[in-house]
Parts: sequence; structure tokens; C-alpha cells
Amino acid sequence: MRKSQKFPKIQGFRFAGLYCGIKEKQGSKDLGAIVSEAPATKVAGLFTTNSVKAAPVKFCQKQLKNSESKLIVINSGNANAATGKKGEQDCSKMAALAGKAFGIQKEQVLICSTGKIGVPLPMAKIKDGLKKLPALSKEENFYDCLQAIMTTDLFPKWVSTKIKLGNKTASIAILAKGAGMIHPNMATLLSFVVSDLALSKGCLKKLLKDAVEKTLNMTSVDGDMSTNDTILMMTNGMAKNKTITSAKDPQYAVVKKALTKLLEEISLMIVQDGEGAKRAFVVEVKNARSENSAKKIARAITTSSLVKTAIYGGDPNWGRIICAAGYSDAIIENKASVALGPHKVFHKGRPLVKSEKPASLYLKKNKVITLSIDLGLGKHSAKAFGSDLGHEYVTLNSEYRT
Amino acid sequence: MRKSQKFPKIQGFRFAGLYCGIKEKQGSKDLGAIVSEAPATKVAGLFTTNSVKAAPVKFCQKQLKNSESKLIVINSGNANAATGKKGEQDCSKMAALAGKAFGIQKEQVLICSTGKIGVPLPMAKIKDGLKKLPALSKEENFYDCLQAIMTTDLFPKWVSTKIKLGNKTASIAILAKGAGMIHPNMATLLSFVVSDLALSKGCLKKLLKDAVEKTLNMTSVDGDMSTNDTILMMTNGMAKNKTITSAKDPQYAVVKKALTKLLEEISLMIVQDGEGAKRAFVVEVKNARSENSAKKIARAITTSSLVKTAIYGGDPNWGRIICAAGYSDAIIENKASVALGPHKVFHKGRPLVKSEKPASLYLKKNKVITLSIDLGLGKHSAKAFGSDLGHEYVTLNSEYRT
Repeated sequence: MRKSQKFPKIQGFRFAGLYCGIKEKQGSKDLGAIVSEAPATKVAGLFTTNSVKAAPVKFCQKQLKNSESKLIVINSGNANAATGKKGEQDCSKMAALAGKAFGIQKEQVLICSTGKIGVPLPMAKIKDGLKKLPALSKEENFYDCLQAIMTTDLFPKWVSTKIKLGNKTASIAILAKGAGMIHPNMATLLSFVVSDLALSKGCLKKLLKDAVEKTLNMTSVDGDMSTNDTILMMTNGMAKNKTITSAKDPQYAVVKKALTKLLEEISLMIVQDGEGAKRAFVVEVKNARSENSAKKIARAITTSSLVKTAIYGGDPNWGRIICAAGYSDAIIENKASVALGPHKVFHKGRPLVKSEKPASLYLKKNKVITLSIDLGLGKHSAKAFGSDLGHEYVTLNSEYRT
Repeated sequence: MRKSQKFPKIQGFRFAGLYCGIKEKQGSKDLGAIVSEAPATKVAGLFTTNSVKAAPVKFCQKQLKNSESKLIVINSGNANAATGKKGEQDCSKMAALAGKAFGIQKEQVLICSTGKIGVPLPMAKIKDGLKKLPALSKEENFYDCLQAIMTTDLFPKWVSTKIKLGNKTASIAILAKGAGMIHPNMATLLSFVVSDLALSKGCLKKLLKDAVEKTLNMTSVDGDMSTNDTILMMTNGMAKNKTITSAKDPQYAVVKKALTKLLEEISLMIVQDGEGAKRAFVVEVKNARSENSAKKIARAITTSSLVKTAIYGGDPNWGRIICAAGYSDAIIENKASVALGPHKVFHKGRPLVKSEKPASLYLKKNKVITLSIDLGLGKHSAKAFGSDLGHEYVTLNSEYRT
């Protein structure tokens, strides 16, 4: 959550958002656009690995193979998932209509959808909305677009930064939505990265993959991987930095570090605004025998219902943490230590009873919990981001139709 | 849940249960025993695959390698897990004390524990309790033992049956506990099978494995695999059937069918009494491309938080079911169909809107839901057993210390 309400401007990019009637709630924006004006726009994308892919996911995958896109149109309120052939036709039609409205080719349009599964898109409303989008597309309308991509999100999620590259300054901004069906693999539910960086297509792809792997792909609200997960990154080169063409270029590392940090912030926002979440938590696994093992264990702890309810209840229940670590991979109990924030509650197989009270206080007082587990087996580490599991989650998901 | 209160007697087996003070609640039994008197007793066991194993699990694994056991001592209220060297010493001491009390060798004793993690066993209380156990061990005290193994269970779980084998009749009875941290792999949280069947040690092992694979190992309350999961099966040959020595013996199939059916009933009881569960559900995956795929998909649906909350809310949300199937394995959307009880809600990629109302009524009216998904990809099938996820689960697990 950003405290400042000063939304970023990225040269060469325009944003828009409006209400066209997809959402039931009058006035909540439900149709947005990100427009790139520079001729040198490059785009990379990562998508859900769910074998049931929403129509817009399949559409984007095809588009990205064929040509560079200049426009992303996003609707919320309807996921256009499990909608069969009709859904695919609607998505393609939406791109054609958007292309026409913006005066570009259909091949340059990407479509993203989020919301209810299994309901056909209201095409007449979308058609009307698309006609109005170009006039609303402005550099300063970042927030309108952000609002248009929200579903059960309680707050809009965005971050931005500036990076020095030689004597040039480049900017990166991210717009994201989260809330439910969050357990991505290779991408997350709708994130858009826009930047004026100059880098080659190959580098852009690698950069996005590298940064997502340790951030969004380690984020879980409910363990359910969506049918619509998508992250798209658009760059236009307008920062005029020396074009980065190799991952060995020292500037690649600078950019990767900055993007990873931004996506880490977005990941934390997503779990903080996890459906019904009262507390978010970051799991840090240290000294694992391999990176893969560290990741598996971190993921298992963030998805354990018993750990999640303990965090909700403010219970420093290290037993559940050790248990989840143990079923996800081979650990050795008497080499493992667990800490909640600064309070070590389990040391090399031994409970530290005196820390339980301060650890419980720490859990109850904080909205973002750090839970670290030192395995004492090797040198590898991983981080994962999770939401607690409370009454609000149950209420929301036993009543809301995704 | 058995309606009849007539508890089974199995020739050659005695049972006991008493309160010795491990549980805080005065009078809830917390120490039990299953005693076999026949000289020809055979025992097989399956245990958690969690790399963090409770002391009694490691102890049983060692004991089963060395000799045949005649006595199982079970305590509830304390899992003796994550208790380090001290826990292992306590467990071994418990076996020695039990052996002494019952006048048998320590090597013939198995120990099981369930309850809180990370708390040392109250050995003085257990010592006193063990002294009283032999006098209470009787053929008719099946229910006392059942009570002694309960933790957050709301009702005791047991089944029994008789099987005709040639001109002999054999009996099988199962005592089980469930409730939380239920997502077994190779066994479940404390189940005991006693029988007067005559079969070879090799056959007994195979029988138990075969039957558990399709029943308890497909059962999930919360997706968390326990540190204490144990199933032990004891047979004494007193039924005098022709000893079954090979899985090819036609009588092996008869026994396997009976045991699988009993364990299926127990699995259903466990999810019905899942911590905080209002509804249980059985997922039937049909026409999958392989048995492994069918199992993976059935498991994913029973563990999806979004499916579980939808069932809690009585929402026939086939979108979440298709989504969970899709992230667990490769499925083809327009070949898949979904039914809730007798109501088909999704047919080969197409939502059947008219069935939503009757399906919702079906969900709201029933305590045990059948959810079937036909993948249309092959000939394999699998069944899995799950609990819904509701407010009661959250309340219980944000307050109860496992």
C-alpha cells in the first residue's frame, strides 16, 4: 500500500479506466487500458501454468509470439474463463474493437480479464466502453487504470522506482491486482510492468522470469492457482540508457535488483490484501540443502492451513511450522531453529518456552509477520509470502462467486 | 459414526482405556491399550512420511523390524513430537513400564501418541496409569480404548465386519482417530485394525498397504500431514481360516475388499468429523488418463480452500472445481464434466445454468456431498475424501494448540 497518492508517470505510456457495466456495482471501474506510444515498444509475458487457461491467457500467448503489442486492455468483473469457443471469439473480438478504437492493428492488442469464471462477457457493454477508452487515455490516469483491474482487492497495488544507468535515469512502475485464487506458478493474477528502459527482447524476457521466480511465484493467499494469472512487462527505450543486450552486462544486475525489489513489495501487498486477511507473513528459509528445498519448504509453510490459522490467532505455534517443513522436504529436527520476528521459539530441536509470550505479543501487535526457519543443512535460502486464514476469508469465499 | 452402540469383540483381543492426567480436562480418557493374547500374533504398520517424525513413530518402526508385538499402548493429549532425545527416552521408558505391567517383554510393546506437539510427556502420571491398565483390559472394553485415543474428535470412529472364508468366519475391527492435521501419506493419524484372520506376515503387510492407499491416503481435512500418522494392524489367526500366504489366493481379494470397504467408512468418518467441519465431501474422478492423474486431481480438489469454502457456503461453484483440477494436472476443459450429487453443472466445457439451483439445494441439504468430475480422457478413476472449510475450523485452529 503506498502512502503517497502521487502516482507515477512513465514517459511514453498512457493509462485509462472507466465503468462500462461488467461489474454489478454501479460506478466501480471495470475496463482499463495501458497504451504505449513509442515505436520501439517491447513486451514480455508470463502466464498461469494451470491446464485450464482463460481465453485471454491463450490469446495473449498467441499474440506475443506474432508481434509487438502497444495496447493492453483489461476488464475486471468477468474472467472469461471456462467459457469455451464463445469465450475465445469474444476475446478476439474485444481485441479487434480495441484496435479499431485506438487506431492500431488488432495484432498489437493484448487482453486480460479477471473476475467470475464461466460467465460470457457482456460484449455490447464492452463495445461501448472500448469506444470511450482512447479519449480517457492519459499519462496521469494511472490510478483510473489501477481501479479498473480490482475485484475483491481492498486497496490498489502499485509501486514505482527510478534507476540510474550511466548518466541516464530509467523508471519502472507496476500495476497489480490480487486478493483471491492466488498461488501463482510462472506469473500472478494480473500484474503490469511499464518502463522506459532500453533492453533487448531476450533480456526483457529473462529479466521478467528471473524477478518473478523469487517474488510473485513465491506468493500464496489460498493455495489455488488461477486460470488467468498474467504478468506483462512493456518497455519503450525512452530512457535512452545504453541498450542492455546481455544478462552479463553489469547494468542487467542493477535493473534485476530494482525489479525484484518492486515485485517483492507488490507480493507483500498482495498477501496483505489477501481475501479476508488480517495479517500477512513472510517466511524466510535459511541454510537449506538446496535452493529448491528452501523454496519447497517456504511454500509449504505459507500454504499450511494450520500455520495460517495460528498466525490469525496470534499463536506462536512452532510445532505446526516444523511439521509443515517436515512434510514438504527432508529436514533434521534437531538442526532446525524457528523464530517469529526477533523471538526464537525453537532452537535445534528444543522449544524455548520463555520466548512464547513475547512471540505471541509480537504476532498480535504486527500486521506483517516475519517467520524464519534455519535448517542448518546447507547454504541456500528462499523467501515466500503468505496470508493468514481467518473468519473473514471463510465469509468472503463461502459467499463470493469466483 | 456407528448408530448401534454394540461394540465388536474380536477373539483373542482385549482393550482398555483410562484417565491418567495427560489431558487437562478431568475425566476424558487419555491412556489406552490393545492387547493380543494369541501366541501367533502378527503385526504390520504404516507411518507418516513427514521427515519430522514423533518419537513413538520412530520407536514403532524400530520395534516392528525386530519382533512381533502383543501390546499397543496409546496416549492422547500429548504427541511426543519435536521433543528431542528426551522424547525418545520417554517413549522407550513407557514401553518398558508397559511391558512390566502386562508381564511381557519391552520388545513386544508398540507406543502411539497424539495431541500437543513439543511438550514433554508427564511420565509420573503415565507410570501410574500404566500400572492400572492390565486390570482394565477386557474383551468388552473396546469403547474405553476408543475414547482414550480421541483429541479434538467429536465422535469415536470405529467399524467392524465379519467375512466368510471357506467354512470359517473371520472378524475385522478398526479403531481410529482423526480431526486435525489430516492429510496422510502412507498412513493416517492413529488407526488400529484388529482381526482374527490367519495370513502370512508378507500378505498382512501388502494387504494393509493396498487398502490404505485408496482410502486413508486419499483423505484430507486440512492438507497438513501429521508427524504422528500411524496405522497398525494385528492379526492372530484364531479364525482358523486356511492361512492366506499369497496375494494371488482368491481369499486375499475377499479380505482386501472387506478391509478397503471398512477403511473407506473410516475415511468418511474422519472427514465428517474433520476439525470444525459442517459438511464432508467425496470426490470421484472418472475417465482420467492414468490412475496417478486421477489421484492427483481428486486430492487437489479435496484440498482446495476455494472448493472447501464453496461447499461450506452451499455454492455449486464448478469454476473452482475445474480450476483446481486444471492446476493439479493436464485436463482438457471441453472434455470435462462436473456433477454435484445427481446434478450435472458443467458438461464438456459448457456450464449448465439450469442445474445451479437444484445443485445448491443438494449442497445445503446434505451432510455428505458427492462431487464427481468426468475428464473424458481415459479409463482411470480415483476417489478422495475431504472436509469443508468454515468458521468453526478457523475458530478451533486459531485457538487450539496442536
